[in-house]
Amino acid sequence: MSDSFTLETSGSKGHLDITERVRAEVRRSGAKSGLCLVMVLHSTAAIVINEHDDPNIGTDIIKALDRAVPDHAGWLHDRIDDNAHAHIKAAILGPSELLPIRDGDLVLGSWQRILLLEFDGPRKRQVHVEILPGQRGR
Amino acid sequence: MSDSFTLETSGSKGHLDITERVRAEVRRSGAKSGLCLVMVLHSTAAIVINEHDDPNIGTDIIKALDRAVPDHAGWLHDRIDDNAHAHIKAAILGPSELLPIRDGDLVLGSWQRILLLEFDGPRKRQVHVEILPGQRGR
Amino acid sequence: MSDSFTLETSGSKGHLDITERVRAEVRRSGAKSGLCLVMVLHSTAAIVINEHDDPNIGTDIIKALDRAVPDHAGWLHDRIDDNAHAHIKAAILGPSELLPIRDGDLVLGSWQRILLLEFDGPRKRQVHVEILPGQRGR
Repeated sequence: MSDSFTLETSGSKGHLDITERVRAEVRRSGAKSGLCLVMVLHSTAAIVINEHDDPNIGTDIIKALDRAVPDHAGWLHDRIDDNAHAHIKAAILGPSELLPIRDGDLVLGSWQRILLLEFDGPRKRQVHVEILPGQRGR
Repeated sequence: MSDSFTLETSGSKGHLDITERVRAEVRRSGAKSGLCLVMVLHSTAAIVINEHDDPNIGTDIIKALDRAVPDHAGWLHDRIDDNAHAHIKAAILGPSELLPIRDGDLVLGSWQRILLLEFDGPRKRQVHVEILPGQRGR
Repeated sequence: MSDSFTLETSGSKGHLDITERVRAEVRRSGAKSGLCLVMVLHSTAAIVINEHDDPNIGTDIIKALDRAVPDHAGWLHDRIDDNAHAHIKAAILGPSELLPIRDGDLVLGSWQRILLLEFDGPRKRQVHVEILPGQRGR
């Protein structure tokens, strides 16, 4: 059971809460238990789980990565594409997160949301959702 | 097959080896093969796989993140909760790790252990363990 | 369905594209759908998904981690083994990545490859591949 959706990011860097999009896929699948993989199919964006009630946390994560991995700091890949920093940040965060499914819904802590982080936008981004049910027919 | 356990962390930052707690859940599930997801249900703590024979490695990981992402370095979320650095560090490491199950036990390298890293303690932390068996009835 | 392969790294740090090795395991398993976990069974190496058409990206990721987590910067574990930086970098990137399987093949974006990053080589490294099929008999 898999599906994918696309979304448009705005700005060169940013963060989007995609929890409800993923939750809709889980409900549509009919899976009552199991695992749900959320993966962005690009190498200059990332999936992260963290709080988004205060959206400034998304901005802080990006600022912290900008500080640790400055844009255009002599990276070799910049000779070809000028977006090396975006690849490095995406590699550090990773393209996917895996979530448990219980009672037909995602298992998340009270302050956990699924975020897409953009490091080389604005772009159309494809997110793949793969659901592996815990038991057949349920 | 899922379960969760809680543990109390001590100190504002720290690391705990939870490998045996997770291993006990795998044995209790009866799964002989499959996948085991270990996820902390909070956004200021993380799950990491690394060596813990020398527990100083846990301390070094925290020190390295303190160096790359200093506490209270002008983060926006500090205006609300003063723990922005903990959210950022947790986002970089991620809330979960996934492990294979073989012969009814976790697959880990000789020097790999499952660690919970605390960045905003002391707190009670809930860890969710989700087991997806490789084959039904086994 | 699981298997593992070993490979030899060269140099103290480096990056290897292991996508075709993993893809061969997926084909050999006969799984048409499901999930594929790729995990390096060591605590000073990591698995990353990113572009490798320009292999300089692998070098840039390593350089960025060297900048954020310098070798021998007073890490406690260096008193025992002198490779603390390798443990920290491996912990930040993580030992594994999870991929969906569709139509008997890995789901990856056009610019995504599976990379092994070495931080304490040259060494023989064991990579575990665990495949959980989406449906029995398929």
